[in-house]
Amino acid sequence: VTRDADALLGKAGAGDRAALARLLSMVERGGDAAREVGAVTHPRGGAAYTVGLTGAPGAGKSTLTAALLGVVRGRAERIAVLAIDPSSPFTGGAILGDRIRMHEHATDDGVMIRSMATRGHLGGLALATPAAVRVLDAVGWPWILIETVGVGQVEVDVAGAADTTVVVLNPGWGDAVQASKAGLLEIADVFVINKADRPGAREARDDLERVLDLSSPARRPEVLETVAETGEGAAELWEAVSRHRDDLTRSGELDRRRADRLRDEVAALVAERVLERARQAADGEAFDRLIDEVQARRLDPWSAADELLGSAPTSGR
Amino acid sequence: VTRDADALLGKAGAGDRAALARLLSMVERGGDAAREVGAVTHPRGGAAYTVGLTGAPGAGKSTLTAALLGVVRGRAERIAVLAIDPSSPFTGGAILGDRIRMHEHATDDGVMIRSMATRGHLGGLALATPAAVRVLDAVGWPWILIETVGVGQVEVDVAGAADTTVVVLNPGWGDAVQASKAGLLEIADVFVINKADRPGAREARDDLERVLDLSSPARRPEVLETVAETGEGAAELWEAVSRHRDDLTRSGELDRRRADRLRDEVAALVAERVLERARQAADGEAFDRLIDEVQARRLDPWSAADELLGSAPTSGR
Repeated sequence: VTRDADALLGKAGAGDRAALARLLSMVERGGDAAREVGAVTHPRGGAAYTVGLTGAPGAGKSTLTAALLGVVRGRAERIAVLAIDPSSPFTGGAILGDRIRMHEHATDDGVMIRSMATRGHLGGLALATPAAVRVLDAVGWPWILIETVGVGQVEVDVAGAADTTVVVLNPGWGDAVQASKAGLLEIADVFVINKADRPGAREARDDLERVLDLSSPARRPEVLETVAETGEGAAELWEAVSRHRDDLTRSGELDRRRADRLRDEVAALVAERVLERARQAADGEAFDRLIDEVQARRLDPWSAADELLGSAPTSGR
Repeated sequence: VTRDADALLGKAGAGDRAALARLLSMVERGGDAAREVGAVTHPRGGAAYTVGLTGAPGAGKSTLTAALLGVVRGRAERIAVLAIDPSSPFTGGAILGDRIRMHEHATDDGVMIRSMATRGHLGGLALATPAAVRVLDAVGWPWILIETVGVGQVEVDVAGAADTTVVVLNPGWGDAVQASKAGLLEIADVFVINKADRPGAREARDDLERVLDLSSPARRPEVLETVAETGEGAAELWEAVSRHRDDLTRSGELDRRRADRLRDEVAALVAERVLERARQAADGEAFDRLIDEVQARRLDPWSAADELLGSAPTSGR
């Protein structure tokens, strides 16, 4: 299988989109397939820069992504997009009949858009996303934009696991507070108030500044305004992203962040491996007997986990 | 600590809300505290019935929950609500100044509303929710309603892990297709089209029926209509939930579902335990050296995970 992954990587590196798509599918599938792809792509990566883009449903993330693609292409740079928002027009938009602003980019060699579907396999998005980034990195995409919906524990974490994370808000009282509750504050490197031509943009910015005052982050995120529909502010947003990149690079913080992410990823891979083993054991008679005991309430789930791990005494009952 | 949990459980069982709140906080914290609470609550549970309620942000889940509380209280039954939607008015609604429809229930001994905040601890919502259900069950709440936002891998799974899961849609072309993409179709036992007084309710129902025709589930969910703002249809929705409960109970499916959920929970606890160990190991020098190797791209993350597990050869490089 490694030979397959290697051959596909060779083709994908030469610009074969079908080969690239197959590699990304292997990564989505998880398990051994993802592992083989990871083994051949990891040694060739490190040059790509990842940008996370997240916000509430309806905040205009996809429209903003389209505007940013225009900016990046205007600079003759290449960019790949991983869209992880189930409500994104990129994700099955054709079925929905949604206007797909990406059509203008569909035949552009400098743009690659991929929607990620990972429901159902172990680890899911949290493991598939860095693996997909690794593939895109290995075949030479210099910018990778990861668009996720900013609701949901996994989705917020995935967007936060980029080199620079952009959080999209809208005018509307309380949006900054909502963002803080959804955990978006901690992950934001840059804030953008999109739909800034609507009433309340100024109040949204004030709200946000107040929330930032209260939370006093180590590095205060820049706050930008955009009207993604018209492209207004998109160039300035990209400049803010580039400034953040320069800061991270100069300070050495980029390497530290990436090392932290690798730590988390390796720990998650360890957990996935063990969970897989536990699930396999879950087909066995011993596991069935344990579950019967738990269901009969003679054993609690924690003690059952201990017995499966075969290590700790079944204390705490 | 077990003695603490035991004492708190005694008080909570006698109606002490502060003691109940402390037990739920221990569960949210995860780790050993959650374990101790689980050990004392698990043996005393089994009588409660859980209802999941989920749907897109803005679908009217909280208003519908309030309407259902009215129905349940009208039948002189007691019900507890776990609100896991970060945008729910229950969750920090006071800060937001949101109209809180729950005020009418705030002084009612037959209603308990708790918002769950679990970001940041291992396992998170997926482990904290069944543990919180176990607490409420052990102190005698007969109905437990779990409200989650239907976006996000973890959140959808949590709502789907109830005895009966209600998925809330709205009039609006494509909502049924969106729900199917978000994985809501697979978990729905009952569908409700809320805001059914708005244009497009009929089309939404037709859409949904077509999507159900295509997916042909083993047990076709009932489709109800409500106007949560006025309470219209809430009684009928609760009857549909009760019918589903009767069906599950009569067919023996309820026990099977619960056993499957226990399997998943025990497997997840095993994974959490091992992830915790891996994170602890992540403080060690050996882990640091491995991460250095991964960052230098001499080792891939999967092989690093293997070395940490100390079991498999570091193949696949």
